[in-house]
Amino acid sequence: MKCNILYRAFLSWVRTYHLQDLIGDILGGIIVAIMLVPQGMAYALLAGLPPEVGLYSSIVALIIYGLLGSSRVLSVGPVAVVSLLVATGISPVAKTGSAEYLEYAIVLALLVGIIQVMMGLARVGFLVNFLSHPVISGFINAVAIIIGGSQLKHLLGIEMPHTEYFYLLILYILTHISTTNFVTLIIGLVSIGVLVYFKTKLGSSLEIMGLSPIFITPITKTAPLIIIISGTLLVALFDFNQIFDVKIVGNVPIGLPSFTLPIIDIDVWKTLLPTAFIISLVSYIESVSVAEALAIKRRQKINPNQELFALGIANLGATLVGGYPVTGSFSRSAVNEASGASTRLSSIITAILIAITIVLFTPLFYYLPTTVLAAIIIVAVYDLIDIETPKQLWIYSKGDAISLAITFITSLAIGVEMGILAGIFVSVILLMWRTSHPHIVIVGRIGQGQIYRNVKRYQTTTYPEVLAVRVDTSLYFTNTRYLEDQILHITANRPEIKHFILIGSAINFIDSSALDTLGNLQRRLDRTGVEFHLAGMKGDVMDRLERVGFLKKIGTDHIHLTVHEAMKTLNFIN
Amino acid sequence: MKCNILYRAFLSWVRTYHLQDLIGDILGGIIVAIMLVPQGMAYALLAGLPPEVGLYSSIVALIIYGLLGSSRVLSVGPVAVVSLLVATGISPVAKTGSAEYLEYAIVLALLVGIIQVMMGLARVGFLVNFLSHPVISGFINAVAIIIGGSQLKHLLGIEMPHTEYFYLLILYILTHISTTNFVTLIIGLVSIGVLVYFKTKLGSSLEIMGLSPIFITPITKTAPLIIIISGTLLVALFDFNQIFDVKIVGNVPIGLPSFTLPIIDIDVWKTLLPTAFIISLVSYIESVSVAEALAIKRRQKINPNQELFALGIANLGATLVGGYPVTGSFSRSAVNEASGASTRLSSIITAILIAITIVLFTPLFYYLPTTVLAAIIIVAVYDLIDIETPKQLWIYSKGDAISLAITFITSLAIGVEMGILAGIFVSVILLMWRTSHPHIVIVGRIGQGQIYRNVKRYQTTTYPEVLAVRVDTSLYFTNTRYLEDQILHITANRPEIKHFILIGSAINFIDSSALDTLGNLQRRLDRTGVEFHLAGMKGDVMDRLERVGFLKKIGTDHIHLTVHEAMKTLNFIN
Repeated sequence: MKCNILYRAFLSWVRTYHLQDLIGDILGGIIVAIMLVPQGMAYALLAGLPPEVGLYSSIVALIIYGLLGSSRVLSVGPVAVVSLLVATGISPVAKTGSAEYLEYAIVLALLVGIIQVMMGLARVGFLVNFLSHPVISGFINAVAIIIGGSQLKHLLGIEMPHTEYFYLLILYILTHISTTNFVTLIIGLVSIGVLVYFKTKLGSSLEIMGLSPIFITPITKTAPLIIIISGTLLVALFDFNQIFDVKIVGNVPIGLPSFTLPIIDIDVWKTLLPTAFIISLVSYIESVSVAEALAIKRRQKINPNQELFALGIANLGATLVGGYPVTGSFSRSAVNEASGASTRLSSIITAILIAITIVLFTPLFYYLPTTVLAAIIIVAVYDLIDIETPKQLWIYSKGDAISLAITFITSLAIGVEMGILAGIFVSVILLMWRTSHPHIVIVGRIGQGQIYRNVKRYQTTTYPEVLAVRVDTSLYFTNTRYLEDQILHITANRPEIKHFILIGSAINFIDSSALDTLGNLQRRLDRTGVEFHLAGMKGDVMDRLERVGFLKKIGTDHIHLTVHEAMKTLNFIN
Repeated sequence: MKCNILYRAFLSWVRTYHLQDLIGDILGGIIVAIMLVPQGMAYALLAGLPPEVGLYSSIVALIIYGLLGSSRVLSVGPVAVVSLLVATGISPVAKTGSAEYLEYAIVLALLVGIIQVMMGLARVGFLVNFLSHPVISGFINAVAIIIGGSQLKHLLGIEMPHTEYFYLLILYILTHISTTNFVTLIIGLVSIGVLVYFKTKLGSSLEIMGLSPIFITPITKTAPLIIIISGTLLVALFDFNQIFDVKIVGNVPIGLPSFTLPIIDIDVWKTLLPTAFIISLVSYIESVSVAEALAIKRRQKINPNQELFALGIANLGATLVGGYPVTGSFSRSAVNEASGASTRLSSIITAILIAITIVLFTPLFYYLPTTVLAAIIIVAVYDLIDIETPKQLWIYSKGDAISLAITFITSLAIGVEMGILAGIFVSVILLMWRTSHPHIVIVGRIGQGQIYRNVKRYQTTTYPEVLAVRVDTSLYFTNTRYLEDQILHITANRPEIKHFILIGSAINFIDSSALDTLGNLQRRLDRTGVEFHLAGMKGDVMDRLERVGFLKKIGTDHIHLTVHEAMKTLNFIN
């Protein structure tokens, strides 16, 4: 199975490569690399890790996804949301900056890899359904605010102790705002200004100047590179780090990562497992949404289970070079596609460029001010803030709006992991409540034919002794009690009823709890002199009922092919 | 609202009392008291509490339920399952036998009371649906084994330290079996013998002897009283506690309980809240099942939300006398009914008898051997073991059988609380999986009429340019992705399709995640030149869609009253 997926993915990739795609792939690969170098380092810092870890993770992830993925333009590597989840998961159990902290991050990549590969092989991609639209929206908004807030200290140059709670962080910054390092702040604000200008205005200015659109996108994406180079030069040439105490990145080790084995310690694994699960789901949902959106644009298809598998292997790869969890990046994938990439070769080109950067250029990052990286992150996460969805949800469904609010508030007040869990919990409860009242239809005979329909919607003939009911849903532990209550209620109010016929034409499954409830219903009806009949049950539902003797219990003469047959057997019609 | 419930319940009770019920009520009240005195003490010990706490809790609970409950024969008080949950919840945070431990138990009663009252007032009794049949069965089997196992030390007279894990308990007993106190064991085994004989054989023996059935039930229920009296006399007269070191109950304080206030400490409340939730659900489900089963027998009705409310107030009452959580007892309620009780007066009579016992007779319990109480518990929980359900589930549905197994194994291996949580988790996942593939029906026109039905089941006319689809379910975050995939799959394989019509006749609700997916589907179909139509949507679904501008987005000319209208508008028929 595993080999089969690997083999198919790789072959389909090589066999179908067209040389005319090469230019686009190279261009896409280069632009993404230009974005990824600063982002990789910035997100690693956000996760509480040394900057080079972000780059190491990217190289392997890009190569592995390039070989195994099903999306042609998805760009894998460190992303903001997952980096925050890594920090949230590890910081309560290990000190930021410690060797242990890094080891735990590597274990997280391993666990995420294992979980995603298993989910891919087991084809349980449906589990992402747990994350409903309101939960995702509440979560992402909270994440954007928390990440943005966490960068304020770098932007302002305020030194502060590590804190787990977002409100404590904000409180600390507000009470220590007087310790702001203004040189740091100005460098940061100018960086933000450049980034925003490149993003919003530059494109149309260049267009007015008559530049060909093919160059515009690449040029607008060079802003991070420009501010990194200018910021670094500024600090290096004028010794800002010495004179004004501007914080810099410092030593980034030179050379390719070495082979690393994650620590094998069941207690550590157990501690990190919940975080790993949440990262697996969130990372998968982010990747698949981006991949799908871009595939649709080009009328291509992606295979969700193959995506899970490829992402999982990419994470396992990251583990082996001492990296941390990776996923498909929204911004970089979109840029990759817009720059003309049309196959996964562009991912591999990006990986090669990052490797070259690590081998040759890391000493150049020594003087890079961290406030510049903070500016890059703040501008990136600002786009995640979405006020429209909460507004729409409030108009559309108060229940869903409350799910969103609970996810959002819990994320900010306690932490993003608890936020997402609380959101899932509330949406499941809401779903249980919404599905606990199935649609129950009393049917009657239409004209003199064999068709029986809703007595409320059609002109039908009914018989007072017969209650024929169609349920428009499968029967589960969540909804059968209501069915039982309703039937008992109707039969109690209409003592003339002698036969109850349950019509199974829309019942695809009866779970064991529902079966238990049906058994109770039959016994209760029996005590009040009402006979229980089944009609129009589907074949495999019948097989199951047969196996546990349910059919025998209600009597085989109480089982009918159709309602019409039942009415004939009961001699109401002939 | 609260007063209204109280008032209605009380009035309906007093107004409708018939004097001819009095004898039955008195007899029921006496027999239940005879059972409850030993059970109340035994279950309190099982919960890790002094024996009198079980009796205190019973008195108030019986009186309050007698005034407010909706079942006529339910007998509330301490029960085995809840006692075990109390021990499981408190023992990790307080030492058994400490003052703190008792205080925590009182807080639990308070929290359970608050939760149940709130659930009753909010009418969210549907939340018990979370506990599916397999989870309850796995849980109860595990509980029976754990409770039985926990009594072995009393039965064998082995002294052992407290342990949280069941397997450690069994391991300890097995490795210390040589320290068995044989006099204790013999008293215990004889007690079990008497209990089993009274329960199984005595009834038919008395019947053969020609005794009137009206006396048989009361007599067979006196076994606990008989063994308690004999056991106590034996130990007291021959100083078995001194000579053979047979453990006895010791001092039970004389006199009615005094008014107690629970401790108010947010940290303690927070720690106990999860346990309180689980107890609230389990206690409610036990009460309601018993109450319903007995009500059906007499064609009476119980009101689930009133039950929740009454149980909640009973727990709050237990709090005020320093008691611990109470619930409806299966065995005592059944005996109450069988002894002839037909109104809630019998509960009040039981309460009075227990109060008299506490005031006058507690010194008599001094020499009561704990092995006798262990015997009573072991015989009681033996009935809870049910091997038939697991077998049936395995035949009926492997998924449900696995839910049961996971609940059972987790309960034994880690603890009953984790077991029930794991069970809920697995059943919800299973439900999500089962409901993630909704039934999708392609419809065609029947004859020349206006009715459109499943093309696979009826002879219909269809048009290659039109795909008309009926979904037999409401649309939720759990199932819409599948719908989207299916439609995209069909339209990709049949490029001649120009119109997709979604028929909403079975759609009662579209949640916001599903709406989001429908929006995506519409955009994706649009890109491939397929127009998106809605037909036969229900009024309130339409209202919601209107509010968020969804109808405008797809174009009001794409919305049709029925499929037939749609076909006419699209000029396929005239």
